[in-house]
Amino acid sequence: MNQKRIEDYGIRIGTLPRGPLNKISDVRGVRVGHTTIQSELYQTGCTVILPSEQNVFTNKLIAASFVHNGYGKTCGTVQIDELGTLETPIALTNTLNVGLVADALVEYTVNRCREDGVYASSVNPVVGECNDASMNTIIDRPVKKQHVMEAIASAETDFAEGNVGAGTGTGCYGFKGGIGSASRTVTISGETYTVGILVQSNYGATRDLRLNGQPLDEDILAQVNGTECDKGSIIVVLATDVPLTARQLKRVVRRCSVGIARLGSYIGHGSGEVFLGFSTANVIAPADEMMSVRCINENVIDRVFRAVGEATEEAILNSMVCASAAKNLAGNTVHSLAEYLQAAESKTES
Amino acid sequence: MNQKRIEDYGIRIGTLPRGPLNKISDVRGVRVGHTTIQSELYQTGCTVILPSEQNVFTNKLIAASFVHNGYGKTCGTVQIDELGTLETPIALTNTLNVGLVADALVEYTVNRCREDGVYASSVNPVVGECNDASMNTIIDRPVKKQHVMEAIASAETDFAEGNVGAGTGTGCYGFKGGIGSASRTVTISGETYTVGILVQSNYGATRDLRLNGQPLDEDILAQVNGTECDKGSIIVVLATDVPLTARQLKRVVRRCSVGIARLGSYIGHGSGEVFLGFSTANVIAPADEMMSVRCINENVIDRVFRAVGEATEEAILNSMVCASAAKNLAGNTVHSLAEYLQAAESKTES
Amino acid sequence: MNQKRIEDYGIRIGTLPRGPLNKISDVRGVRVGHTTIQSELYQTGCTVILPSEQNVFTNKLIAASFVHNGYGKTCGTVQIDELGTLETPIALTNTLNVGLVADALVEYTVNRCREDGVYASSVNPVVGECNDASMNTIIDRPVKKQHVMEAIASAETDFAEGNVGAGTGTGCYGFKGGIGSASRTVTISGETYTVGILVQSNYGATRDLRLNGQPLDEDILAQVNGTECDKGSIIVVLATDVPLTARQLKRVVRRCSVGIARLGSYIGHGSGEVFLGFSTANVIAPADEMMSVRCINENVIDRVFRAVGEATEEAILNSMVCASAAKNLAGNTVHSLAEYLQAAESKTES
Amino acid sequence: MNQKRIEDYGIRIGTLPRGPLNKISDVRGVRVGHTTIQSELYQTGCTVILPSEQNVFTNKLIAASFVHNGYGKTCGTVQIDELGTLETPIALTNTLNVGLVADALVEYTVNRCREDGVYASSVNPVVGECNDASMNTIIDRPVKKQHVMEAIASAETDFAEGNVGAGTGTGCYGFKGGIGSASRTVTISGETYTVGILVQSNYGATRDLRLNGQPLDEDILAQVNGTECDKGSIIVVLATDVPLTARQLKRVVRRCSVGIARLGSYIGHGSGEVFLGFSTANVIAPADEMMSVRCINENVIDRVFRAVGEATEEAILNSMVCASAAKNLAGNTVHSLAEYLQAAESKTES
Repeated sequence: MNQKRIEDYGIRIGTLPRGPLNKISDVRGVRVGHTTIQSELYQTGCTVILPSEQNVFTNKLIAASFVHNGYGKTCGTVQIDELGTLETPIALTNTLNVGLVADALVEYTVNRCREDGVYASSVNPVVGECNDASMNTIIDRPVKKQHVMEAIASAETDFAEGNVGAGTGTGCYGFKGGIGSASRTVTISGETYTVGILVQSNYGATRDLRLNGQPLDEDILAQVNGTECDKGSIIVVLATDVPLTARQLKRVVRRCSVGIARLGSYIGHGSGEVFLGFSTANVIAPADEMMSVRCINENVIDRVFRAVGEATEEAILNSMVCASAAKNLAGNTVHSLAEYLQAAESKTES
Repeated sequence: MNQKRIEDYGIRIGTLPRGPLNKISDVRGVRVGHTTIQSELYQTGCTVILPSEQNVFTNKLIAASFVHNGYGKTCGTVQIDELGTLETPIALTNTLNVGLVADALVEYTVNRCREDGVYASSVNPVVGECNDASMNTIIDRPVKKQHVMEAIASAETDFAEGNVGAGTGTGCYGFKGGIGSASRTVTISGETYTVGILVQSNYGATRDLRLNGQPLDEDILAQVNGTECDKGSIIVVLATDVPLTARQLKRVVRRCSVGIARLGSYIGHGSGEVFLGFSTANVIAPADEMMSVRCINENVIDRVFRAVGEATEEAILNSMVCASAAKNLAGNTVHSLAEYLQAAESKTES
Repeated sequence: MNQKRIEDYGIRIGTLPRGPLNKISDVRGVRVGHTTIQSELYQTGCTVILPSEQNVFTNKLIAASFVHNGYGKTCGTVQIDELGTLETPIALTNTLNVGLVADALVEYTVNRCREDGVYASSVNPVVGECNDASMNTIIDRPVKKQHVMEAIASAETDFAEGNVGAGTGTGCYGFKGGIGSASRTVTISGETYTVGILVQSNYGATRDLRLNGQPLDEDILAQVNGTECDKGSIIVVLATDVPLTARQLKRVVRRCSVGIARLGSYIGHGSGEVFLGFSTANVIAPADEMMSVRCINENVIDRVFRAVGEATEEAILNSMVCASAAKNLAGNTVHSLAEYLQAAESKTES
Repeated sequence: MNQKRIEDYGIRIGTLPRGPLNKISDVRGVRVGHTTIQSELYQTGCTVILPSEQNVFTNKLIAASFVHNGYGKTCGTVQIDELGTLETPIALTNTLNVGLVADALVEYTVNRCREDGVYASSVNPVVGECNDASMNTIIDRPVKKQHVMEAIASAETDFAEGNVGAGTGTGCYGFKGGIGSASRTVTISGETYTVGILVQSNYGATRDLRLNGQPLDEDILAQVNGTECDKGSIIVVLATDVPLTARQLKRVVRRCSVGIARLGSYIGHGSGEVFLGFSTANVIAPADEMMSVRCINENVIDRVFRAVGEATEEAILNSMVCASAAKNLAGNTVHSLAEYLQAAESKTES
């Protein structure tokens, strides 16, 4: 990918080392695919995070969710909270498409298991969503089964960000939102581990945005005016190869809120904020009656917490700068944060 | 309806008065509809509980959920937990059909709102499920959109119980399970209020079942042998006209577990037990910035708790005795509890 | 101990094997101590469960809590829920004595650590409580630091049940309540493990009690009349050597409610029901940055669930039959369930 | 009070109007008292927030708690979560003194009720804590009953901030921490309401601190070096007269995390972060069986959320700038943020 990211504008979030791609896919085995739908009526899509190269239904991963604001329609968290495992890819889409996308994940899983000779009669699909109604005729639920299958089929490690997939129609802090990602590495017991984040960003008001702690320049804003969104949400997906129990992972994903708050949000009422995480370090497969879960000693978990805050903040900014301007259904332009940053660079130079 | 219910076998649960139908629909405004699918491959369906005669999206009701065992795929609880409101009918179906049924509820709500001139761009469908894989080729997701619409269209106050709708393919304590209902009335501040319960029963092992506290007769069981189920679940829907805040209602629905435990279950690992409740006493409509919620003084809530325990226990028994025997996909007969009770009556008489 | 327990009255709960003492102390390393306070003004005390023979602060155990009804003052659950560990003994006492008993646990832990050369500057004492105000002038908080120290010093594996320690002034289903215990064994991967339960019982109304599923005999009740309690609670402490993660253990302790419901309770508003559990199988000590937690495969957890339901039901009955009749502050006799059972035996024989 | 606060250094947090004192006591009826203990061995104390001029036990207030990081010993949240009410003042102290301070609150409440002719046999004391072990010989639990009574007796609306009461021995971002407060007003339905915050600050590392979004100046830091703390915590108490249900209030207190994250924290493992809130708008008194709770329409709750984020951020800064430098037990100086700000002002001027 050759997209210009937030670092390329000289904004560097935090101090920890990045992974090679600075994306969630720096966690080995993780791939991301998009299907983008763009037409006069529809700007929407779906994004799928494949958590592992194996069949995740028969090789479940430890998982956790944290609902920071439950004004949202994410499905799959009830079972994740109880059993602490993930058994399907994670899909993101628009609010009213959750049902169809969940159904597609079930079909994908049933078929994938059939290949392995397994009859999957109980499947827990995990689908997150943001409301893109201002750019998408959402009541038509334009994301269909084949869109999900295409997203899965096209999954790769070096995926696009911005207004693609589930981020096609979203807005963030009055600018164009989208899909963004980032990663950080931490060292535990002499080994290097990766924390990767992917967001679907769709929340916040322009006046609240803080770039490296600073509010935006009013003069420049006069040119690239933010369009305030009524409703929003943000879904954060966290992947890591740090060995963690489900309880530890729940503590880890909870820290995604830090990155959001640092950008200026006060977690608005209408902004469903849901964090979903998985660790690839342990595989839970039907086997012996006794097992053993590798995990970290809690006294080093701060390293992981710090990585989560930094990567989430940066992933959101990447979702915004990688997105290009777009017109909403009302015909108004939703500008890109990249436009603002370019204008800011010009102003500085002049 | 002319179905023989558990009381007709001389088994009377608890001491509180019943409503006129002894069903969830004794709560004014509540109606229930079923679509039953029966063929060689499929024994499944869907059941829809309409919570009110009004458009519930524009006239939201206070709601609460409690997940007693989260090994399940119920959707819609994230938003109920956050906002404490219900904005769609509640649908029940089989495990792998949750996505399609949720999508149908969205379509129903979008259309219902369009009639009222409202554009419903954010809808939280609530769908519960049990796994009927032993009687239904579940991976085909045979419940389609029109089945949900038919269930809604056919909703009535005096609905059928047993193997109908979402209970068509379920099993309970080794007997045929299904849909069952019961109600109780309580007096608060001089007024009579109703607590109604509807269950989709699909859990438990025969050896654990207790009828009025007693295990089953081994001799009779030798004739109507229970078929143990590997996986199960129970969804309990509670309706009431008792004025309650969302917090109070969460305490109330939590007591559904009492009825289940009294029947002998120890809440098995595989039995997703999810309780969903709503109160019709307050309507939350967009209006003034200040509002007022009518509720009970907590010191009389025990009356409601007692009603919940009794009605849940009886609703489960009704789901079983109203169900007729059926063959599972393996060709084995799943007997009805009614057969057992008739055999027990014969034995007593002889 | 030579106390007559519920089994000695021919009432056998469940089907699983018991441990040698049929008490929580069948879990290796667990000991229980009581201090009983009895005078005209006070019938109260404290009971301490020592979870391990080691210093539990420096050798923490995996722990979990579940609040079934939070109308109670138990302290220590916030940290247990976050970190999943226990670092002090668990103490039980009366409602208004929680503060002083918690302070005593802190002092015990600080001193115990000092012996080991550790400065314990952060200690999370765990104290459960029931309200014995009808038998105890509770506002005086008669349980003092030395009572806690005495209870710890006197801890043993074969401890007394009934109206001793924290059960001295409690009532249950209108009879005298108290401390009771039971245990069950389960086999996993060829090894035998133990689930032990200890309760402080103080809840329920006589008319709701079910003995082996049956309500009490009205004629006999006319002689040994139950005194209904206004307020109550039940604390259940679970110990096990089954290897479990904190998440699994939380699922396990949640099943304590099954035993309570089977005895007829509907979990009354005023009955704070709190369940506290720990597993001795993993010791969490400051050590390497990476560690490994032994646990069971979730697909065998039902064995443990069944054990919890049985042992909790039996422990409550033991707390009642081991208690002798006592006078409350109003001068009325609170009868023992043993009296009822003896009268029932006489009636049967005659 | 004549203390120099963060605004007096030209740092203005947020945009909403302040209350007259810019303290939690701008909420009518709220008062705060401190007892400060300072000696060679001890720098600690207690701070009590009186929520109302009435007896809060007999005139309970709607309350909510949110545990953002449960590595802490706060007591009282179990009952608040269940019943949604506050029935005692809220006390803050050091970690190991929670038990004694809780006991003192019980005694205060019992006595206060006796004056009103009420026998308080069940009292839920609410006590928050931070760990001041680096400045206080914490294992001695130096805060005694009379210290709590003195704090209550001295409560006033215009109370001191900084190293007083429960903030005497705390540290924050490597500077001296303490007690701080702030308030904001919001308009709903034409009426002005107040949101007040009080914090006990004891968390964070210097390198993470952001002042108005900016990291500290390295040159100045070289003079007033921060002393990193190993362990920490922050307790946030929120008072408001906005009418809210317990569910709404839980959403509101959850937003306290926003202020913390904006200052740069990633919510460290060792930092127990507990938020406690109450609303004075409804009084829950024993009365009729039916009642009515005034609350806001959820669609205006964002106004309150914004106020919480701003006031929490400012309250933390006030806790730091109002604190003077102090020596810890190791003899090292813990500097005040005021020193840093003064040095920064000098540098700017020069």
